[in-house]
Amino acid sequence: MPPANPAVDTADVYALLERGRSMSTPVLRAAVDRLAPPMDTVAAYHFGWIDAEGRPADGDGGKAVRPALALLSAEAAGADPRTGIPGAVAVELVHNFSLLHDDLMDGDEQRRHRDTVWKVHGPAQAILVGDALFALANEVLLELGTVEAGRATRRLTAASRKLIDGQAQDISYEHRERVTVAECLEMEGNKTGALLACAASIGAVLGGADDRTADTLEAYGHHLGLAFQAVDDLLGIWGDPDATGKQTWSDLRQRKKSLPVVAALAAGGPASERLGELLAADAKSNDFERFSEKEFATRAALIEEAGGREWTSQEARRQHTVAIDALDGVDMPEQVRAQLTALADFVVVRKR
Amino acid sequence: MPPANPAVDTADVYALLERGRSMSTPVLRAAVDRLAPPMDTVAAYHFGWIDAEGRPADGDGGKAVRPALALLSAEAAGADPRTGIPGAVAVELVHNFSLLHDDLMDGDEQRRHRDTVWKVHGPAQAILVGDALFALANEVLLELGTVEAGRATRRLTAASRKLIDGQAQDISYEHRERVTVAECLEMEGNKTGALLACAASIGAVLGGADDRTADTLEAYGHHLGLAFQAVDDLLGIWGDPDATGKQTWSDLRQRKKSLPVVAALAAGGPASERLGELLAADAKSNDFERFSEKEFATRAALIEEAGGREWTSQEARRQHTVAIDALDGVDMPEQVRAQLTALADFVVVRKR
Repeated sequence: MPPANPAVDTADVYALLERGRSMSTPVLRAAVDRLAPPMDTVAAYHFGWIDAEGRPADGDGGKAVRPALALLSAEAAGADPRTGIPGAVAVELVHNFSLLHDDLMDGDEQRRHRDTVWKVHGPAQAILVGDALFALANEVLLELGTVEAGRATRRLTAASRKLIDGQAQDISYEHRERVTVAECLEMEGNKTGALLACAASIGAVLGGADDRTADTLEAYGHHLGLAFQAVDDLLGIWGDPDATGKQTWSDLRQRKKSLPVVAALAAGGPASERLGELLAADAKSNDFERFSEKEFATRAALIEEAGGREWTSQEARRQHTVAIDALDGVDMPEQVRAQLTALADFVVVRKR
Repeated sequence: MPPANPAVDTADVYALLERGRSMSTPVLRAAVDRLAPPMDTVAAYHFGWIDAEGRPADGDGGKAVRPALALLSAEAAGADPRTGIPGAVAVELVHNFSLLHDDLMDGDEQRRHRDTVWKVHGPAQAILVGDALFALANEVLLELGTVEAGRATRRLTAASRKLIDGQAQDISYEHRERVTVAECLEMEGNKTGALLACAASIGAVLGGADDRTADTLEAYGHHLGLAFQAVDDLLGIWGDPDATGKQTWSDLRQRKKSLPVVAALAAGGPASERLGELLAADAKSNDFERFSEKEFATRAALIEEAGGREWTSQEARRQHTVAIDALDGVDMPEQVRAQLTALADFVVVRKR
């Protein structure tokens, strides 16, 4: 792990995340308030602003890495951070549209320590409110009425398409016996990289940056996203449920072909082969739903023994380095560069 | 019914619909081809270009009223009809996104004489491909890179939001005992009026028309949409299954609070009251799924006796008149005006 930038420590990263959250949330809430009932209520539940009974709540709205990035992105282009707010809101809306739909498609019952929308409000509301948030994302940008907003919407649309491609790949991989490391990385680049890339460039685009600057910031965000997802894949197997809000061995329970799994299967050797046999048998097993902790622990140990955990950890660090190196291509205030670097550092050391 | 414009007869309307279809389909297919597998195949199945086994098919792609409108809309603004093509494609993509999601939410198993996507390819593909078509709609417009395209995307986004609002209302009404005629009209304005309004104005916007012209064409499309939906509601109860591709009494089987139903319930009198009692009992009945043709025929007869059929028929004609009157607000070539009028005439007399 490269040393964290001395000028920006972890406390500062939390302050950056908090700034992104506090500056974008009022605008996000105002946008969601425009939804026709009952979609406004369902969305407010999803964002953690109310509980399942409709009472005000102070739920976990997620890490808010994307809004923080969008604001820094505006500053990287020399604009006021507030210029990035509509971008931050639009990206958050697209991110949450995808969460609503993905949770339903994947049958995930928990998100951010709470029951998912389809579980509480039913599948139709999960589809509908996801659709509404997606539409709202474009609305929030396009109502700015500027040429820059048009460019930002075009980039957001491209990112959304990649996000959907990534989910399509993710679903198809779950039904396949073998997925290559390259396929997994491509899927994660689409599913996670594309929207972080958009978040990292959208503020700059709204601030009038040229395409080259925007593309370079996108590259930073793309690799940051790959680092982020590699860490997510580690947490999906070895994460602390109290911190992640997910079940133990969450990704294994869902037969996810995440990076540690595909890397372990590709590694060869006794542990890799034993893992391959077990997972092939699991795919056909009728008992899978009744597996105990012990069975998942065995699989996790084999993944680790085959080197899948270490490889994924190194991959996170590789992508982290590429992300930070990309920043060299943009002329920006040194303080902003230090903050983007610290955010990248945070992404690879986080526990949730 | 006002007399059809003598200059444009029914054969000409079919030619207009065919022109819209033949000019927009190649661009639509090229856009759908961009989707990552298996979404491209699922979308091609939905559009009727291939069958469930993947063999080329010449399926029923729908009436294609929207593409025809988008091309005429460009001509209304004095532009070449081809200027409207990206608008026609974008509107068709949004329309089909909503069909994919609505069929899943509503549990509809048949559309255009074929099994629906969720029935053939599963719910996840229906959600995913719907999302992809929605994103593609914005992409097709925004990649034009013009100021006009930005304005068109903004209008399409607003229409999409209304479409989603309308579906939310439609779903919520199915669970309510009483829905007023005003609520039903509002829902239909959102669910059907908004996108036809967009189709009727998007070509003009792409052709550089000012906001007033676009708004007036939108008004025409909105009322055309309300006329269209009133006719759809009639066909949903009394339509010929061979023509509509739906089951007999299709809307009654789904407990839809469509215009004939709400108008009949609002009318008062013995048939209206008897209908109200039956529908209230149906809502609680466990036998509803096993109802025979006779039970639905009884309900349809009561709706007709209470005046719901006649009221809806008149409503279609009222909206048709308002739509055509709206055209007076735009200066356009007389031939285009005659064609838009003939298209409105067609919408109210169609059998499918």
